[in-house]
Amino acid sequence: MARTPLWRSIAHTLGAEIAAGLYRPGDKLPTEAALAARFGVNRHTVRQGLGPLIEAGTLHARRGAGVFVATSPTDYALGRRVRFHQNIRDSGRAPSRRISRLESRPASGGEAQALRIAPGDMVHVIEGVSLADGQPLAAFQSVFPATRFPELLAAMAAQHSVTEALAACGLADYTRAETRLTAKLADPVLALALQVQEGSPVLRSVAVNVDGAGVPVEYGTTWFAGDRVILTLNAEG
Amino acid sequence: MARTPLWRSIAHTLGAEIAAGLYRPGDKLPTEAALAARFGVNRHTVRQGLGPLIEAGTLHARRGAGVFVATSPTDYALGRRVRFHQNIRDSGRAPSRRISRLESRPASGGEAQALRIAPGDMVHVIEGVSLADGQPLAAFQSVFPATRFPELLAAMAAQHSVTEALAACGLADYTRAETRLTAKLADPVLALALQVQEGSPVLRSVAVNVDGAGVPVEYGTTWFAGDRVILTLNAEG
Repeated sequence: MARTPLWRSIAHTLGAEIAAGLYRPGDKLPTEAALAARFGVNRHTVRQGLGPLIEAGTLHARRGAGVFVATSPTDYALGRRVRFHQNIRDSGRAPSRRISRLESRPASGGEAQALRIAPGDMVHVIEGVSLADGQPLAAFQSVFPATRFPELLAAMAAQHSVTEALAACGLADYTRAETRLTAKLADPVLALALQVQEGSPVLRSVAVNVDGAGVPVEYGTTWFAGDRVILTLNAEG
Repeated sequence: MARTPLWRSIAHTLGAEIAAGLYRPGDKLPTEAALAARFGVNRHTVRQGLGPLIEAGTLHARRGAGVFVATSPTDYALGRRVRFHQNIRDSGRAPSRRISRLESRPASGGEAQALRIAPGDMVHVIEGVSLADGQPLAAFQSVFPATRFPELLAAMAAQHSVTEALAACGLADYTRAETRLTAKLADPVLALALQVQEGSPVLRSVAVNVDGAGVPVEYGTTWFAGDRVILTLNAEG
C-alpha cells in the first residue's frame, strides 16, 4: 500500500483545521519553524504542505510577514460620500491607517488643475496605507490646497482620519465630484506598500472631492489591492 | 566617431513619423517584412528598432495582428444608464461589437440569485468583445431571463446593440442597480479576446440592470483592458 506523503498529510491537516475554524480568515499561521516542529518534519516539507493551500487560495503568503488564512474581498462603497473608516466598519472589519509621508510642497500641473489653484501654489500631501483588520487594502496619496487648510498636517497628527482632520480645519462636509478608475499592475514600491506580489492587479482610483460650493478640497489617488477589495456602486449613489 | 546603430536610427525615424502624424493613434504600422525592406535591414533589426517605442508606450503589439500606434485610454461613463455604443461615440470613437457566443441554458445559482429567478430557469447568454475604432476595449458576458425575453437572441442577430435588442423585446428603458468593480489579471482566454498580453491588468465589472419597476433584466460581467479604458463616475450619476 502506498504511504501518503508527509507534505500531503500536512496540507490535509491544516486544511481541515481551517475548515473547522481553528484558524480563521485573516489569522496568521504559526511560523514554518513552529509547523516543522509540530509535524516533526523539516521546513522544506512544511512549505510543500502549504503549497496546495496557497494554490487553492485558502492561504496567502505576505512577503516578510508570514502565511495567513485568506479573507474574502472587502466591499468598499463608492458613493457621493466616500469615507474610508466608515466603509471598513460597514463591512465588519476594523479600519486603520498608516501614514508614511506628510509634506507641504508646490503643486504639480495636474494637481493644480484638479484643485483649481495655480501651478506652484502650496499643497499638503498625505501618503500612506489603509488597512482592514491589519491587512493592507489600499495605498493612497491625497493632495490638499495648503492655503485653504493651513493646519491640516498638524490636524492629521492629532486625528484618526482625513475626514476628522478636515473637520478640525473647518470643513464639516465634502462630497465626491468625479472618480476615474482603471486597472494597473503593482510596481515594486506599490507591492511593498500593499504587501502583494509585484505584478499583482491593482484598481487605481483618481478622485476629486468638493465642498458644498463645488470647490475642490482634495485630489486623491488610491491603489486598491485587486484581490482584497471590491468597489461597489449603487443606484442611490 | 561611433556610428549610430541601425536599430536606433529606425526607432528615431518611426518615432519622428508618429510625432509628425504620419502614423496616427490606432494606426497599424507596416509589417516587419515591409519595414525591413524599407530600411534595408533584416527583421531582427526592425524588432530591435520597435523595442524602445513599445517600451515607451508609443507603440503596442497585438498578438497575431501587428504593431499599432498607441491610443490614449477611452473614457467610459459608469452612470445609471450605461450604454456601450453611446459611451464610445461620446469619447469620439467608433463603437462595434463582436459576438462570439449566443446560447440559452439553465441559470447557474449566482445568475439566478442576481436575476431573481429560480436556479435552473432558462437564461439567454451573450458573450463577445466590445471595440472602439476596431481595438478591443472589453470582453463581456450578459445573462438575461429567457422567460421575460423569449425572442432576445433572434433580436440580437438583427440589431446593433443589446439596448436595441431589448427595445425590440419590449423593454424601452433600463437602469444600473448595482456595480461591483475589482482588478484582475488577464488569463490566456481573456488575453486572446482582448488582444493583450497574458497577465495584463483588467478591470472587472459585475453589474445588474433593472427595469422601471426594479426587476432585474440583465446580469452582466465586463472585463475592461486596463490600459485602454478609464471608467468615470460623476456626482450626477
